[in-house]
Amino acid sequence: MELIEEQPWEKRREFLALNPAATLPVYVDDSMRALCGPAVLMEFLDETHGVLKRDRRLFAEDPFQRAEIRRLTEWFLAKMEQDVTRPLVRERVYKLQMTAAQGGGAPDSKALRTARSNIRQHMKYLSWLAGSRPWLAGDRLTYADLAAAACISVLDYLGEIDWAETPIAKEWYQRLKSRPSFRPLLAERVRGLTPVSHYADLDF
Amino acid sequence: MELIEEQPWEKRREFLALNPAATLPVYVDDSMRALCGPAVLMEFLDETHGVLKRDRRLFAEDPFQRAEIRRLTEWFLAKMEQDVTRPLVRERVYKLQMTAAQGGGAPDSKALRTARSNIRQHMKYLSWLAGSRPWLAGDRLTYADLAAAACISVLDYLGEIDWAETPIAKEWYQRLKSRPSFRPLLAERVRGLTPVSHYADLDF
Repeated sequence: MELIEEQPWEKRREFLALNPAATLPVYVDDSMRALCGPAVLMEFLDETHGVLKRDRRLFAEDPFQRAEIRRLTEWFLAKMEQDVTRPLVRERVYKLQMTAAQGGGAPDSKALRTARSNIRQHMKYLSWLAGSRPWLAGDRLTYADLAAAACISVLDYLGEIDWAETPIAKEWYQRLKSRPSFRPLLAERVRGLTPVSHYADLDF
Repeated sequence: MELIEEQPWEKRREFLALNPAATLPVYVDDSMRALCGPAVLMEFLDETHGVLKRDRRLFAEDPFQRAEIRRLTEWFLAKMEQDVTRPLVRERVYKLQMTAAQGGGAPDSKALRTARSNIRQHMKYLSWLAGSRPWLAGDRLTYADLAAAACISVLDYLGEIDWAETPIAKEWYQRLKSRPSFRPLLAERVRGLTPVSHYADLDF
């Protein structure tokens, strides 16, 4: 598998041909068939490899538990994304790499303020989930935890999370960060943007 | 099954307890377990009833075809919803029923203009899909067609679609409208808002 970096705001014709919605990630197989976006990818991976994974499967078997995993995945990748992650990443990361014609430049302080004021409520909900279940969607690690961790690690990289305020969410995130599969992700860096000092620490 | 009307902007405490994302529809079973939103519901219905439906199943069996159904469902219920349907419904329908404190009042003409300028591109994509396949996601009617029809019927009710411009999309929508399962939906009315005269006609 080869990783290709895509700047979605450039709207490359070849990229839009694969995914008109211009969302990431997109997986392209040997026959140039594309799988677009995290929700479609997680379902595909479970359908083609899930059962073989046995107790390491990232989805449940029971339809109601599957519904809860999907509800939470959507919560973190659509709702929290819209309320918090997308505006913050746009203002603080994308705009650094965009040309003026693409909409680059200084962050919009009103957009930052609105997104930041939404973080607290989302962290409260995450804490409630982490405090009432071993993992976010139930007894086992699932795609819901990975979706939440994707959101949280981006916000943590940017120094947007006040961990002292949310000890229960912090304990959940520490457990996830300590998994061997998570380590390589914590070594990645955004060009021209240094993460907060504790970003890759397992004890933060 | 009992149908309960919910005004999501009222943010009723009991409703938010069932679905913190405040999206509709929500299905509540006898044990008060909630299934939230169209994507979660369609997966649940397929998992619990799909195989029994045989050739009337609204999902495919092949994982790549399932991915295409999911991509398009998300296209119509997330992307087209965000670009077109949600702002138009908010400005033209919800605001009529909201109090001033809830954000009701006259439509914002800038929001209307932006949403309307996005319709044409979405209709072009719908026409491309309808013109290259018997049904939107492939050879058979699937949840992708129902998702698109949900969007389109709302916009058509409001008179926002210029059918003379999109004959291919029109032919697809006529086929869908003619199905017995679609008829009762065309008889529904929004309080205080009359649909365009052709709304329930099968030949429009």
